[in-house]
Amino acid sequence: MIDFAATKALFHIPDGVIYLDGNSLGAMPKSAAARAKSMISDEWGEMLIRGWNDAGWMEQPKRVGDLVARLIGAAPGTVVMGDTLSIKVYQALASALEMNPDRKVVVSDNGNFPTDLYIADGLIKSLDKGHVLKTPNPEDVESLIKEDLAVLMLTHVDYRTGRMYDMKRITTLAHEAGAIVIWDLAHSAGAVPVDLAGCEADFAVGCTYKYLNGGPGAPAFIYVRPDHAKTVRPALSGWLGHAAPFAFDLEYSPAPDVSRMRVGTPPVIQMTVLEEAMKAWDGVEMADIRARSIELCDQFIAGVEASCPMLELASPRDANKRGSQVSFRFENGYAVMQALIARGVIGDFRAPDIIRFGFTPLYIDNNDVDGAVKILAEIMETCAWDKPEFHKRNAVT
Amino acid sequence: MIDFAATKALFHIPDGVIYLDGNSLGAMPKSAAARAKSMISDEWGEMLIRGWNDAGWMEQPKRVGDLVARLIGAAPGTVVMGDTLSIKVYQALASALEMNPDRKVVVSDNGNFPTDLYIADGLIKSLDKGHVLKTPNPEDVESLIKEDLAVLMLTHVDYRTGRMYDMKRITTLAHEAGAIVIWDLAHSAGAVPVDLAGCEADFAVGCTYKYLNGGPGAPAFIYVRPDHAKTVRPALSGWLGHAAPFAFDLEYSPAPDVSRMRVGTPPVIQMTVLEEAMKAWDGVEMADIRARSIELCDQFIAGVEASCPMLELASPRDANKRGSQVSFRFENGYAVMQALIARGVIGDFRAPDIIRFGFTPLYIDNNDVDGAVKILAEIMETCAWDKPEFHKRNAVT
Repeated sequence: MIDFAATKALFHIPDGVIYLDGNSLGAMPKSAAARAKSMISDEWGEMLIRGWNDAGWMEQPKRVGDLVARLIGAAPGTVVMGDTLSIKVYQALASALEMNPDRKVVVSDNGNFPTDLYIADGLIKSLDKGHVLKTPNPEDVESLIKEDLAVLMLTHVDYRTGRMYDMKRITTLAHEAGAIVIWDLAHSAGAVPVDLAGCEADFAVGCTYKYLNGGPGAPAFIYVRPDHAKTVRPALSGWLGHAAPFAFDLEYSPAPDVSRMRVGTPPVIQMTVLEEAMKAWDGVEMADIRARSIELCDQFIAGVEASCPMLELASPRDANKRGSQVSFRFENGYAVMQALIARGVIGDFRAPDIIRFGFTPLYIDNNDVDGAVKILAEIMETCAWDKPEFHKRNAVT
Repeated sequence: MIDFAATKALFHIPDGVIYLDGNSLGAMPKSAAARAKSMISDEWGEMLIRGWNDAGWMEQPKRVGDLVARLIGAAPGTVVMGDTLSIKVYQALASALEMNPDRKVVVSDNGNFPTDLYIADGLIKSLDKGHVLKTPNPEDVESLIKEDLAVLMLTHVDYRTGRMYDMKRITTLAHEAGAIVIWDLAHSAGAVPVDLAGCEADFAVGCTYKYLNGGPGAPAFIYVRPDHAKTVRPALSGWLGHAAPFAFDLEYSPAPDVSRMRVGTPPVIQMTVLEEAMKAWDGVEMADIRARSIELCDQFIAGVEASCPMLELASPRDANKRGSQVSFRFENGYAVMQALIARGVIGDFRAPDIIRFGFTPLYIDNNDVDGAVKILAEIMETCAWDKPEFHKRNAVT
């Protein structure tokens, strides 16, 4: 069992703050600044160009990838870090479409984070080969898993509601229909157990600045199923995905594994802070994180529903269908969230009416949940939410 | 005139090191570590998610872009930071090809840095529309500027030899032939004067970890000529290039300017270190940097040629045709560079036989040049470079 008091002590939470927005930007590990300083002064400053070898910068994207892999049910050597989640979505989808050249349908859902849809749309326009992107309601996705489906590209946990797909079931259905499956784990990695290998998912991508606490703009990750990793053609064929980058060959020849999904020079400072942040996961099992996450989310739901009758639960009540966040709908959600933040309870608002709270067991405990419920209840009680003049004052423009 | 002793004092150079590899990874500004620490502790740690607005993280890629713009002859608001140079090459080329849809020839050269060629090759394979990438010798490029040329994509300063194209002349020729022109400024930004606006170049890309000293993996930049920036379709259509990212629209609508070339969440820690490093350029004019660079390079060439007759100058002797580096050819160049590095003179080796020295006026002075020449001469004199047994011992495997 995890000593959650000990993991909480690894993070800095500002005085007076209850931080329920780790699903957007994770809190700062207390050791992050010192590690950045030592990397900059002792590695960049002293080793200069030699740091690429002597400080292990060149291998870092795979080394850190292995740390992430353990949390998402992926074997060592199947995950590599780099770029942003948007870029990784592009890489995965471009490769996936080439693997299924005779099919033209890409299915996602209208609850997906917009960048995934934008990237897919842009790629489809570039290719100009008649692909179609379909974005049904999440509950209608299964009905579109048919013989014309080229690629199913879904975000496992919905960024607004926390609704979570059954990854195993959906992947199996899509494979049975002959489709390639890409999972976006932005709200899953470090939040809920994921078993990529067990699901036989083809590709997965995700970011590390949410539940993995890598800092703003921390590098993304990409997983490629090992059998595909030897054969997929990288659309973004940069030199660090080459089998021998420092041979400076004029011809591109991809690395024999997931490293072919590397593109350009990795952001070493940012990657080093992420590597430091990953130490918080030493010895942590996702099953324990999950149990604690469900406890915290259920506690929050019960508390809010008991004290804030105007708020409507937007997340699945069934914990098995929910990630590590809880969302409520309220017409004046934006104003409620501003009031909460002013009182030190930081969550966030997603248009048009969602207030969203992330629960990160590494640093959120039962007292935080109670405190957040209490303040939310006070705000809901003391503000005249049902008065027309309030609506006018707080209208979101 | 620049006070070069003052700019040199801004950088940390390790004891006993003469650092002539700033064309690969620039030296560390002394203030970098403290700025990273304050950004992490005071912004990420204390502001948490609010840092995107309160600390100006969201606008940083354009703010820093303006600092770079001044050094490359670009107007404010025409450069944006992000991703890696490889990604920016992809974006520029993808947009450029769409601007010239009836032409299928892309010309670069066989001295271009391989990632540019790999990226072009990968994009052409993805598009599958019959494009051809031609890579003539640099001196033959002009002969391929013809009516079938879609895009001319060149690196301004050759990474091995330092040979520099006449940007104005080549751009004009290509435009007269109806082609789009992309310049890779990896070895130009902060190294030589560039006048993108004056040349009417269509796109330019570059990195900031060389002469701009942003640290290993610092973000890249992209310039789009203002008239194009309103109309080009971004191939990598990520959410932060959207006109209104936080509206979370399902449809992509690009930002009205170069911001449409933003893709995903920017690496804020890395960007902040770069922004700090850019302070060294306050009040620095590229014309003064250029004069000093030529002085240092000419001094180095004269010194080496006077004392190392076995080394053959690989860079143009005419300073007007050379960037801010000097390269020599030598069969045992790898071993020579290893010996130099062991004596504290850090340059680098590029296969098959190039030893390469970068001169960065902000922190390299005449004493450094004299010191490097002296040590190189000693190594060339004392090693039995002409003896067969030496070749055997030092063979590059």
